[in-house]
Amino acid sequence: MSKRIYFNAFQMNCVVHQSPGLWTRNDDHMVDYKRLDHWMNFAKLIERGCFDAIFLADVLSVYDVYGANRDAALRNAAQTPVNDPMLLIPAMAAVTEHLGFGFTSSILQHHPFTFARFITTLDHLTQGRVAWNIVTSYLESTGRSYGLKGLPDHDVRYAMADEYCRVCYQLWEDSWADDAVLADKRRGIYTDPSRVRDVVHDGKYYKVNGPHISEPSPQRTPVLFQAGTSPRGTDFAAEHSECVFVIGSSPKVAGEYAHAIKSKAQNFGRRAEDVLCFAYMKVITGSTEAEARAKYEEFYSQVSYEGALALLCGWSGIDLSKYEPDMPVEYIETNAIRTFLHSFTHADPNRMWTMRDIANYVGIGGAGPVLVGAPEQIADQLEEWIAAGVDGFNLAYATLPGSFEDFIDGVVPVLQKRGRMQKEYQPGSLREKLFAGRPARAQLPHPAAKTRRGW
Amino acid sequence: MSKRIYFNAFQMNCVVHQSPGLWTRNDDHMVDYKRLDHWMNFAKLIERGCFDAIFLADVLSVYDVYGANRDAALRNAAQTPVNDPMLLIPAMAAVTEHLGFGFTSSILQHHPFTFARFITTLDHLTQGRVAWNIVTSYLESTGRSYGLKGLPDHDVRYAMADEYCRVCYQLWEDSWADDAVLADKRRGIYTDPSRVRDVVHDGKYYKVNGPHISEPSPQRTPVLFQAGTSPRGTDFAAEHSECVFVIGSSPKVAGEYAHAIKSKAQNFGRRAEDVLCFAYMKVITGSTEAEARAKYEEFYSQVSYEGALALLCGWSGIDLSKYEPDMPVEYIETNAIRTFLHSFTHADPNRMWTMRDIANYVGIGGAGPVLVGAPEQIADQLEEWIAAGVDGFNLAYATLPGSFEDFIDGVVPVLQKRGRMQKEYQPGSLREKLFAGRPARAQLPHPAAKTRRGW
Repeated sequence: MSKRIYFNAFQMNCVVHQSPGLWTRNDDHMVDYKRLDHWMNFAKLIERGCFDAIFLADVLSVYDVYGANRDAALRNAAQTPVNDPMLLIPAMAAVTEHLGFGFTSSILQHHPFTFARFITTLDHLTQGRVAWNIVTSYLESTGRSYGLKGLPDHDVRYAMADEYCRVCYQLWEDSWADDAVLADKRRGIYTDPSRVRDVVHDGKYYKVNGPHISEPSPQRTPVLFQAGTSPRGTDFAAEHSECVFVIGSSPKVAGEYAHAIKSKAQNFGRRAEDVLCFAYMKVITGSTEAEARAKYEEFYSQVSYEGALALLCGWSGIDLSKYEPDMPVEYIETNAIRTFLHSFTHADPNRMWTMRDIANYVGIGGAGPVLVGAPEQIADQLEEWIAAGVDGFNLAYATLPGSFEDFIDGVVPVLQKRGRMQKEYQPGSLREKLFAGRPARAQLPHPAAKTRRGW
Repeated sequence: MSKRIYFNAFQMNCVVHQSPGLWTRNDDHMVDYKRLDHWMNFAKLIERGCFDAIFLADVLSVYDVYGANRDAALRNAAQTPVNDPMLLIPAMAAVTEHLGFGFTSSILQHHPFTFARFITTLDHLTQGRVAWNIVTSYLESTGRSYGLKGLPDHDVRYAMADEYCRVCYQLWEDSWADDAVLADKRRGIYTDPSRVRDVVHDGKYYKVNGPHISEPSPQRTPVLFQAGTSPRGTDFAAEHSECVFVIGSSPKVAGEYAHAIKSKAQNFGRRAEDVLCFAYMKVITGSTEAEARAKYEEFYSQVSYEGALALLCGWSGIDLSKYEPDMPVEYIETNAIRTFLHSFTHADPNRMWTMRDIANYVGIGGAGPVLVGAPEQIADQLEEWIAAGVDGFNLAYATLPGSFEDFIDGVVPVLQKRGRMQKEYQPGSLREKLFAGRPARAQLPHPAAKTRRGW
């Protein structure tokens, strides 16, 4: 039987995640992002669809590259305002049994001692269903929010991330022995003090001197996600990540990236199958191809030009505000910008693309590609991506809950019938569900496992 | 009609909060503290009892003063292991409608930019039911966990807390105008960019330069709790706190403390009724006095000596491990220690108190007094405390859920019948529920309100 395809629902605690403009539709419910029931209903829907996890993105400041100000982002609610993602998990976990919850947390945000306890608490409350998406932030404004002049240099941020993870691993893996907690009511001993020890870390960026203050959780180290694409970022992913978030404009691009990461992981003594690659994907489907196309056209006409460019400029760091909407991409004089924009034109490289076309492409797809078609057609295309080398998808939406309802009621049964998607969840923690036959805890040669000294 | 009495349920995300030894009873469920349903059931019980809020304590490191090590605390699960309290709130809020949620967060734990978003997120998700207990930490080991040599000096910590609050107030109160969020689907404008501005704070301890990234929540600034008892701590409380947590061994002691705080608040232009004083209290009740006494005796016999002293030494910073359990307090040579321990003997100052008696007193009461009796007797005594000047109680428990069930089924109906306790909740945010007739947001002359500049 073919390997099952993994699915995360890609989300964010804000109004507009990957579809600028569509929040204005009456059938889009993301304006309710401040309500608990909104998130609990969402989690129940995604578990009904047998997805592996909800994957929550995050940013820590407002997109302010387009026009060198934040006006476009604010007007269009483009990933701003944005509330904390971690705080959604306890309520979503309360109404689900198996679904995993991955959330983004930048190493700039918390001291590792604080962060390690958040993870352990969540892993207890969810009974082992937590994943952490390790990010190093990309908006200069995030550094300023924390009182810095801007962000630390890219490679410094990765050096910080590496140290941050190693401190957390020690707190999660090495401070409490497996048999530290006795919970022995008869003898009145909860913890054996001889089985708890200090983490003493005096590093370049972080210092900790004391024991972890939470008892071991089912997974200890959460399932680790990462999405770096730079050489330093992929090195980091190859060593630390168990799931890598890939954005590619075609199966070939994403597949080659997945192969590269898996191959690099082998340099760290890991196997290719130790790393699962999730490709960004948006799907617009309906009962027929015509219905799906009609939805696509309608959504396309509702894209916000300014909202799309606020996001694209924030992601790339390039201010595109000086180009008029009707400016053809190939007339742009700056080579680097023209080349960057051409990376979006692969769907139809022969026609003339204007800035508005680029904005619409980004507006409808978000950070990556969009598939449009009837369920069988979508399933075929998703299988092509898998054949090209990715393991699954981080599925974004056009409208919520509509896009996920369409996918779960239409495409999921097709994939299940083809034996390409799980019909029910496996028992155990998120790590055991993702990596069948493996234990709940990180295993050698993963660096988290390496921090376990003997007792 | 007499003023209603306020009640918080005093809790902590750990096995042993204020009753060392009693976790070993089969009817105590705190060993389930890692489970979401444990907390959701607890919240439903407390809301059934018409309490104002759940008040979650916290510490960030292990109690290690007794015997200069952490063995006693770990063996007895004395507030350790301890998971993060904030992460319990979303799940508890999901199954309640009116109950408030106060949680402790030390200023050493988070950057104010990070913390401000946590609060705003929670205030949205709970629809305005969040309170923050501002603490500055008291265990030297907490400083070490964060890589410091120990804690900053006491007065420095309060200077930090003052600045921390003022940074948070700016993020909560001054960054987004009331009319910033339009959520206008027709015009496609979510936020009016001209109504969002940066917080620029370049202080002694904290720096922030950017806008708050969450839109305004119902209360903006959460209801503020504080529990300082030092001159600097009470100054802080008098200026910032809306609810003050008081620990007194008798109505007189607690009442005088409450009067002092309220009087000090007037120095800051506030009214006495702007500050509510909650006295620590534990209640052991049953259908008759004899039944309550029998429970008390049984609990008393189950107190853990070592667990009680681990807590007491941690709270006081005094290592009492060199005194044998049978050592009479009055034979202790060090004046300061003898005086400190005599503060626990007021219940019966004429008899000879040993170290074991002190441990049992602390073990059964926790950080403060315990009332034992039938519901009518308890109600009478609580009214005495109120008459002495406090506004309500932070009610601790001996066993969970037993102590709260006994109180809610026994004492609450008596107090309600006497018109001293609410029978149903008032509408609105926690601040509106606690301060009838006032708005959801902090008002002048509170320093949070002072940070609002004009638009």
